[in-house]
Amino acid sequence: MFTFEDVESAEIDRRAAVYGPLADAVRELVDATIRSTAAEPEIRAAEAAIRAVTARLRRDQLPGSFGISYNSSGDSMPWGNAAIGLRNAIAPPLEIEPDPGGGYRCDVVLGAAYEGPPGHVHGGVCALVLDHIAGVAASDGVRATSTGTLTLRYRRGTPLGPLCARARAERTEGLKTFVTATLGDADGVTVEAEGIFVVPSWAR
Amino acid sequence: MFTFEDVESAEIDRRAAVYGPLADAVRELVDATIRSTAAEPEIRAAEAAIRAVTARLRRDQLPGSFGISYNSSGDSMPWGNAAIGLRNAIAPPLEIEPDPGGGYRCDVVLGAAYEGPPGHVHGGVCALVLDHIAGVAASDGVRATSTGTLTLRYRRGTPLGPLCARARAERTEGLKTFVTATLGDADGVTVEAEGIFVVPSWAR
Repeated sequence: MFTFEDVESAEIDRRAAVYGPLADAVRELVDATIRSTAAEPEIRAAEAAIRAVTARLRRDQLPGSFGISYNSSGDSMPWGNAAIGLRNAIAPPLEIEPDPGGGYRCDVVLGAAYEGPPGHVHGGVCALVLDHIAGVAASDGVRATSTGTLTLRYRRGTPLGPLCARARAERTEGLKTFVTATLGDADGVTVEAEGIFVVPSWAR
Repeated sequence: MFTFEDVESAEIDRRAAVYGPLADAVRELVDATIRSTAAEPEIRAAEAAIRAVTARLRRDQLPGSFGISYNSSGDSMPWGNAAIGLRNAIAPPLEIEPDPGGGYRCDVVLGAAYEGPPGHVHGGVCALVLDHIAGVAASDGVRATSTGTLTLRYRRGTPLGPLCARARAERTEGLKTFVTATLGDADGVTVEAEGIFVVPSWAR
């Protein structure tokens, strides 16, 4: 749910400085869990230590998912989001910014946790990145949108490592915004996307 | 990379019983990291404990991503995979099985870590699930394929919670296999997909 919370923007910054490093540590752990070649007793000990930390974190917790909270300055905390969430270790997290050339861009490094074909980013993870940045371009900070259709064209494998995503809104017709987006590495585009984003019924 | 490793299938099972629970514990931690409302000292202590575990796991680790290893019986370990990887805490992991009615199906519960719009699965995560199961239907255990194009139609929001994905190969023409797939909840389909999967050049 969208939750209004009457907190100062400075308090949001303070919380980001507490929870951000926690999630970063969990991201590193996710990577190590995939790549470790430690012996069985070490793995068992790691599991026990992690379960103990989780139990302590869970002593006080939200009843469900994080949702999005925001304050009266309009600052929002989409911190549970699977693509951009500061507190979500599944999210790289993407840091999307306006592109001086128009639209939006995002530089991101995708490591072992995002693998599909050996050495390459999972096609579905490419879709996650492209869906999110295309949605940002469709919204452009001014309108609520959700994905209507998304078409992805995989030109070649996307290598794990440093990547760049770009998206721009091509036109808006009534409730629909048409967006194009690309994902690529230093050698050029690997995946192209076209999306139609629509104003959700609750925002009409 | 694809790595051949001369291990018995029983040894693969033994490893799965060691690493699977570790990744499950990390999945729980990812969820708790998003939802915890513990006080700052508790969060800082959790971060320190996690960094210590990670350092121990990293003492011996693979130089890069997990890749896919397999043995002479053809049993494979796609354990780093972002959708199905037993050792990848980003993966739910999906457990895809043949559908008695034809094609493939997968029941999965997606929680707080997969959120996009409040209370709903991120559209890009829906794409990840659909891309993967559609790829399995295209391969059907007999041919190597990779995603050529994927078109997703979002009919309505996909609620967090128990979901079912289905996919089936409609036809094969030369190097291309045409697949349809759906994701849905108890009330029916939320996202439809059509994909064209192609035999990669290295497998021709």
